[in-house]
Amino acid sequence: MDGDGISSATPTEEMNGSGNLMDFLDEPFPDVGTYEDFHTIDWLREKSRDTDRHRKITSKSKESIWEFIKSLLDAWSGWVVMLLIGLLSGTLAGVIDLAVDWMTDLKEGICLSALWYSHEQCCWTSNETTFDDRDKCPEWLKWAELMTGHSEGAGAYLLNYFLYILWALFFSFLAVSLVRVFAPYACGSGIPEIKTILSGFIIRGYLGKWTLLIKTVTLVLAVSSGLSLGKEGPLVHVACCCGNLFCSLFSKYSKNEGKRREVLSAAAAAGVSVAFGAPIGGVLFSLEEVSYYFPLKTLWRSFFAALVAAFTLRSINPFGNNRLVLFYVEYHTPWYMAELVPFILLGVFGGLWGTLFIRANIAWCRRRKTTQLGKYPVLEVIVVTGITAILAYPNPYTRRSTSELISELFNDCGALESSQLCDYYNNPNMTRPVDDIPDRPAGPGVYTALWQLALALIFKIVITIFTFGMKIPSGLFIPSMAVGAIAGRIVGIAVEQMAYHHHDWIIFKNWCRPGADCVTPGLYAMVGAAACLGGVTRMTVSLVVIMFELTGGLEYIVPLMAAAVTSKWVADAFGKEGIYEAHIQLNGYPYLDQDEFTHRTLATDVMRPRRSEPPLAVLTQDSTTVEDVETLIKDTDYNGFPVVVSRESERLIGFVQRRDLTLAIKNARQKQDGVVSNSVVYFTEDAPQLAPNNPQPLKLRRILNLSPFTVTDHTPMETVVDIFRKLGLRQCLVTRPLPLHSLLIH
Amino acid sequence: MDGDGISSATPTEEMNGSGNLMDFLDEPFPDVGTYEDFHTIDWLREKSRDTDRHRKITSKSKESIWEFIKSLLDAWSGWVVMLLIGLLSGTLAGVIDLAVDWMTDLKEGICLSALWYSHEQCCWTSNETTFDDRDKCPEWLKWAELMTGHSEGAGAYLLNYFLYILWALFFSFLAVSLVRVFAPYACGSGIPEIKTILSGFIIRGYLGKWTLLIKTVTLVLAVSSGLSLGKEGPLVHVACCCGNLFCSLFSKYSKNEGKRREVLSAAAAAGVSVAFGAPIGGVLFSLEEVSYYFPLKTLWRSFFAALVAAFTLRSINPFGNNRLVLFYVEYHTPWYMAELVPFILLGVFGGLWGTLFIRANIAWCRRRKTTQLGKYPVLEVIVVTGITAILAYPNPYTRRSTSELISELFNDCGALESSQLCDYYNNPNMTRPVDDIPDRPAGPGVYTALWQLALALIFKIVITIFTFGMKIPSGLFIPSMAVGAIAGRIVGIAVEQMAYHHHDWIIFKNWCRPGADCVTPGLYAMVGAAACLGGVTRMTVSLVVIMFELTGGLEYIVPLMAAAVTSKWVADAFGKEGIYEAHIQLNGYPYLDQDEFTHRTLATDVMRPRRSEPPLAVLTQDSTTVEDVETLIKDTDYNGFPVVVSRESERLIGFVQRRDLTLAIKNARQKQDGVVSNSVVYFTEDAPQLAPNNPQPLKLRRILNLSPFTVTDHTPMETVVDIFRKLGLRQCLVTRPLPLHSLLIH
Repeated sequence: MDGDGISSATPTEEMNGSGNLMDFLDEPFPDVGTYEDFHTIDWLREKSRDTDRHRKITSKSKESIWEFIKSLLDAWSGWVVMLLIGLLSGTLAGVIDLAVDWMTDLKEGICLSALWYSHEQCCWTSNETTFDDRDKCPEWLKWAELMTGHSEGAGAYLLNYFLYILWALFFSFLAVSLVRVFAPYACGSGIPEIKTILSGFIIRGYLGKWTLLIKTVTLVLAVSSGLSLGKEGPLVHVACCCGNLFCSLFSKYSKNEGKRREVLSAAAAAGVSVAFGAPIGGVLFSLEEVSYYFPLKTLWRSFFAALVAAFTLRSINPFGNNRLVLFYVEYHTPWYMAELVPFILLGVFGGLWGTLFIRANIAWCRRRKTTQLGKYPVLEVIVVTGITAILAYPNPYTRRSTSELISELFNDCGALESSQLCDYYNNPNMTRPVDDIPDRPAGPGVYTALWQLALALIFKIVITIFTFGMKIPSGLFIPSMAVGAIAGRIVGIAVEQMAYHHHDWIIFKNWCRPGADCVTPGLYAMVGAAACLGGVTRMTVSLVVIMFELTGGLEYIVPLMAAAVTSKWVADAFGKEGIYEAHIQLNGYPYLDQDEFTHRTLATDVMRPRRSEPPLAVLTQDSTTVEDVETLIKDTDYNGFPVVVSRESERLIGFVQRRDLTLAIKNARQKQDGVVSNSVVYFTEDAPQLAPNNPQPLKLRRILNLSPFTVTDHTPMETVVDIFRKLGLRQCLVTRPLPLHSLLIH
Repeated sequence: MDGDGISSATPTEEMNGSGNLMDFLDEPFPDVGTYEDFHTIDWLREKSRDTDRHRKITSKSKESIWEFIKSLLDAWSGWVVMLLIGLLSGTLAGVIDLAVDWMTDLKEGICLSALWYSHEQCCWTSNETTFDDRDKCPEWLKWAELMTGHSEGAGAYLLNYFLYILWALFFSFLAVSLVRVFAPYACGSGIPEIKTILSGFIIRGYLGKWTLLIKTVTLVLAVSSGLSLGKEGPLVHVACCCGNLFCSLFSKYSKNEGKRREVLSAAAAAGVSVAFGAPIGGVLFSLEEVSYYFPLKTLWRSFFAALVAAFTLRSINPFGNNRLVLFYVEYHTPWYMAELVPFILLGVFGGLWGTLFIRANIAWCRRRKTTQLGKYPVLEVIVVTGITAILAYPNPYTRRSTSELISELFNDCGALESSQLCDYYNNPNMTRPVDDIPDRPAGPGVYTALWQLALALIFKIVITIFTFGMKIPSGLFIPSMAVGAIAGRIVGIAVEQMAYHHHDWIIFKNWCRPGADCVTPGLYAMVGAAACLGGVTRMTVSLVVIMFELTGGLEYIVPLMAAAVTSKWVADAFGKEGIYEAHIQLNGYPYLDQDEFTHRTLATDVMRPRRSEPPLAVLTQDSTTVEDVETLIKDTDYNGFPVVVSRESERLIGFVQRRDLTLAIKNARQKQDGVVSNSVVYFTEDAPQLAPNNPQPLKLRRILNLSPFTVTDHTPMETVVDIFRKLGLRQCLVTRPLPLHSLLIH
């Protein structure tokens, strides 16, 4: 709109014969072509804008060396963004891991030799640590010992208990306050919102710098407080914030919402990659679970970002073991066909837990939204943290951090293992190597561990339902996996003891000779974790690949798949939605699901306006005045209007976006002389013939989309939904055999 | 067309108000809705047919228990097909591996203790084999030894040489004859054709039972003949044939070309999975390289099929090492940043080799197509086999099978390794464990190996260009990897010796102390193989993932990625096409590439007919006679015709497929009384008003697609291509602001 008034002067861009089509892309004034908050983008338009931009750069690049270098920079900017995302999200993940480690231990005590050491680091650097008692060293003091000098006795226990609760409350209070005051979007796991954003919705600030900063800090606080939540989902959000941050460095990404989403898909992959140390799993997670539009170029770049992130994390080495993965498993003992029965049972358990969790959690979140409860988020967090801390401390399996718990449950018991879970009666005559220990009878420690684990299971199941959805960063992967790992380990020990004591039973006879290492309880924990995670999120391939990367071998893919498939089928039987889709629906985000229209409907049955409603709001190509347009904008809330030749013929010539129309008229009224309320707005090439006393007309062809998407009213609804999904349309016009008929808005 | 003549009786399906839309789906006579050979399918139509079928089954399932069971069976049939594909393709791969092993060794000698044992199996079972001389055992006799009793001397050598050539010629002659006589489609790698088929093209018989059988047999013969070709590509073809075979068991897949292609995508994944023992890589290969339409459901099922196939192969255990993968690598020594320089150089080499190979091979194939050469395929194979055998036998690195060669090149030299490549001077005082041997000076054997490898490299480069494309099954993965592995190993040894002899140089100083194990030549071979494979196929993620699965560790992902990225960039700089796209183009298959329309064109510039051509061939809704239609079909070769209200108004009411029209008229003439040449064909709901002496009109509304896809003539061509790609359209009508204008055929 450089506004040359009545004259039909052809702008330079139109010289090549097709310029008028792309008029609106030349951004004659700011903000035309952008979107409002909480609106959906038009993928097709974004794509053609990018093609246009690319074409301009290519043609310019032949003009001078400087332009050529600029075009090269532009071509490489995608890789640079990926590199930066990988570096930053890897670094942040490392920092979060280190901070969580330290602060989790801070609840119990402190390292005197270096205050910033966690318990493990403290005793690791100490010279007085023995292998048998790795957890005890003089440098590490529990709070009671530091304050009163006594490390034993009821008084010391109670003081430690009290301080544990106090620290937990302090951390969670800090977390919820920071979220409330600085970045309300930093709460939750973020995956439902990212899914929605990637599908084309705009939520301004959701991936902003403040959210990034506050989510990183409060994530550390929330995890350290000992609440039943994990850092995996929020890490995806953090990585996407990094992605958004680096997008703003390059106009290629910052000015194009479609291209920006490609970067965000890759960032999500980087997030999962650092969360689990599983780069391939991360890419598949992004592809399967999060992303909407995932071209092959994005696949390759996502993979790059995920790898860079994983290697950055590895060079920070927060776990001190040079391992990339969170739960590294070393055993490679084979499994037997008969074990598929308990594995499938674990799959059923996982599916049931998934269903239970989703229903209960959604019901509770709905209650939070609709009742008084929602008004006191800080109090809610404090209360849940208090209950969690009070109940968690007495049980050694809930007191420690959840990822440590999972790690212990996944591990097999070596001969030298000193933990309670590995308290088996050893055969003193055993001469077998350390890594091939036969099944042994369980000692009292194992039985103690079993009932403590059972209590921990119930506790985790209940408390997670109330925790997920509070106003703090909270991921669901770790609690789900913990529930599954506990259940799996219990089943595993049961099968192991049964096989040991009854190896003459027909089912054990074939595969379990006495003195053989036939059952690996850690594998059951792993299978259970996969089943529960699958039940809640409905991940499939990415889940199996992540677990495959954790174990580093193909040996256990069949057990994992059996459990994951069973869990998905069981959970799907009770409801198709995963927890993320359920939260998307709860929050009322627009997300186009494939199953929305399963009935045999046609476009004509779904389109608006219906027969009883007022007719479709349209603009005519050369007989509407500025005032008419303004009235139409004020009276309706449609996102755009079809432009027709005249009200009588209803021949469609194009479609104009509400936002562009508003901006264009505002701009014209300010800057263009002679445009008044009764100026005629025209969308044709040439100005209409007007009476001489008419005010100067306003040419708006530039903001007109000359190739709006149309379908006939006989098109089946599935096809229309398919078109919306695959092409990422914002709207689609429905035509009767020919005349323009109606408007269908996504 | 159950033909109720003039009456406008509404068929039952129309009762629910939208039946007329799907009329053509009810398949009133056979073959309507199918496609002709060498034609493209309409994905959108296939999809809506499947939805329709699914809907019918769902509604029927409530009627009786039997129908419910049938609906369950239908829902499970996808998984059953995957299971069967996995089992059969895994079994076939195992059989092929065993047969190739045996027949390759048959060229050199025979096992006396059991004729069906390969050399390795023969000596493995022998009691007289020592560890140092694993290759020699009394049971295994070379031909000369068996015939003349002498195993040494020039005479024995020449006799062995002669018999080697003779066997090679025999195998290749058998292979090419079988292909020629029984299944011409069994030649080549098959991947270009499968890519084309998956994009929606119909090539009848390409995935037939005969092709399956002959390709399996001739693949064994071709690989055993010692030609420079691999079994990986053809295994994908074999797996797809299995997929097609099992599709025919279920009408859900056999009657729907769209659903069939989902199964084929999964089968391709299973093929790569067994070719390399890399299930995840297989799925990503299918996703990245082969497939066109890959919904998430397919991802999950492909993964299942790939796993089943891999486990079937593993339980057959053709390599006798309980390993799934072809080239299992055991070392985990770290690499150093400075090594990225040779890795990137290998990437450049890979890219250059890719370019050279594609250009030379395409030029040679074009010559084969256009000159006399193409008329003597058997002779060509015989000549190339002869040259290959004559040149290959004297060099120990080309005499053995290519996969063994790659396997040896990938391996690191342990202290006990006896091969020529591992002839290093050992330090007698060395006390280090076997798997951590420091760099050592190369002995004479290594230098001999080096020039033999250099000769082998030149030989492989030249002969592969002439081999790929002959009328026998031939894969390209193994020869490409061999070229890269040889080049990589040479570079690796060079760097190793440089680092050993000059560890005071500034570049080696920081990472290579004397006595350290700093350079692993096997890793260079692996990186080189990835680079060359990437240069030829332009695979990216799947390539790295396959290599990652081969090595089983994340350690070497960065070197592999660096080489793969460099290779792709270098090769892309010389031409965007990979070898498969180049062969698709050479064979003139229709494959819709994204980059086809990069210029600023509109639909109006591309559509047919152009302004100078005769006007668009259309049918009118109620004034064309049967004879007119038949003339139109005879005179034109369009795949379909738009139906308009009348020639004057040109208002579009639908689109009718040429094939459906032909079949419907043929059927009506045979079965329906009163339909003669001057009967009027009508596409409206009600029969037109006709003079009483007119013959009975023919109602064809059932085959009319009432929701053809339309775009305006102002739509940019990229958008149109995008729509074609994403929705898998067969045709798209171009309308001027409104009246029907023109037709665009894919």
